Amino acid sequence: MSKKIVLAEKVKGKSKEIADELNRFFREKGIFAVNLIGSPGAGKTSLLEAMAPRLHGRAAVIEGDIQTDHDRQRIEQSGLCACQINTLGACHLDAAMVRKAVNELSLDGVSLVFIENVGNLVCPAGFEIGEDIKVAVVSVTEGEDKPAKYPSAIAKSRAMVVTKLDLLPHVECDVGRMEAYAAAANPSLECFRVCAKTGEGIETFLDWIEEAARSR
Amino acid sequence: MSKKIVLAEKVKGKSKEIADELNRFFREKGIFAVNLIGSPGAGKTSLLEAMAPRLHGRAAVIEGDIQTDHDRQRIEQSGLCACQINTLGACHLDAAMVRKAVNELSLDGVSLVFIENVGNLVCPAGFEIGEDIKVAVVSVTEGEDKPAKYPSAIAKSRAMVVTKLDLLPHVECDVGRMEAYAAAANPSLECFRVCAKTGEGIETFLDWIEEAARSR
Repeated sequence: MSKKIVLAEKVKGKSKEIADELNRFFREKGIFAVNLIGSPGAGKTSLLEAMAPRLHGRAAVIEGDIQTDHDRQRIEQSGLCACQINTLGACHLDAAMVRKAVNELSLDGVSLVFIENVGNLVCPAGFEIGEDIKVAVVSVTEGEDKPAKYPSAIAKSRAMVVTKLDLLPHVECDVGRMEAYAAAANPSLECFRVCAKTGEGIETFLDWIEEAARSR
Repeated sequence: MSKKIVLAEKVKGKSKEIADELNRFFREKGIFAVNLIGSPGAGKTSLLEAMAPRLHGRAAVIEGDIQTDHDRQRIEQSGLCACQINTLGACHLDAAMVRKAVNELSLDGVSLVFIENVGNLVCPAGFEIGEDIKVAVVSVTEGEDKPAKYPSAIAKSRAMVVTKLDLLPHVECDVGRMEAYAAAANPSLECFRVCAKTGEGIETFLDWIEEAARSR
């Protein structure tokens, strides 16, 4: 095995250790942590905004972006407590970044933490950051074949949320086929269809999240 | 400097060497090479399909995807010669992959090569793969702030193509602000607005590509 691979494994091993420690911390506090992954503009922040009214006081959000704190501002405006990680170039969050962010969040009364990863349907799939589950977010505007082209993100996720249903009449996207591609990558995947703008499907997804939290 | 960084730099140095060699090869053949980068579903393949009628016989396409050869099939159906690279997990193309693909392409009469990178607005920005220029592709459905949140892709590109103009009436996206964010990341960036469905803006973008090829 080359030195490069050995070193990469050491780095990944250390990151996994921090992720496990962080996950224990969340469990001890009775917090269920969801790692949201998806392309830039897939609708991750809008999904959180749409869920916010039902989550006031009991959810917190960690926003991951390369630059800007736009998403933290949006989440705070929706009434949830949020903090922002800027990776300054890194293509995914790692557990050490999340641990630092957790120290900045007030977690009193919080039973759900959403961690919105950097917009990237590839790299975030390969890293644990303390979450209980990953959820992949894919919009109808991206096209029905994305779960086939980015299977790792789907395979590592417990659920896929298909967003922007309101745009379906204007784009060529067969959501049934998208879900079939996703099922091929992950037969036990749960699928949800939502529209953050109209609220369609939001309650059902949130019910499922809360059930997953109860039954973990 | 740690071993890890030294090794990473060696790998990157080797990749840069292959990229330079590939670029010399393209130049000797009178070929201008364009590296298209953008999120999954940004509209990179649709842009190529829309340009295809004007490019028959003189352009070839290298498709980069983690899995599937959907995009190669689409490009061939549009009448252009294409080959497919599957990275099988890697989040961006590298120069060695492209060199291998070039050997499979028939380049007789070809003066333009488009290399569609893996759908990812982050990692492909950091790698040269033999291209003369990078072009960033961003759709209006991703939201106006993406150039601010993913500045490296914009900073490394010679042009940004804003796609899916037909969806503008249905989404909240101020293209002027998107272009202003892009200009902040790269003041010399050229901006284009296109709609692959209606053909709007396609000729103008292609004129610019051809002028860039002539004046390099």
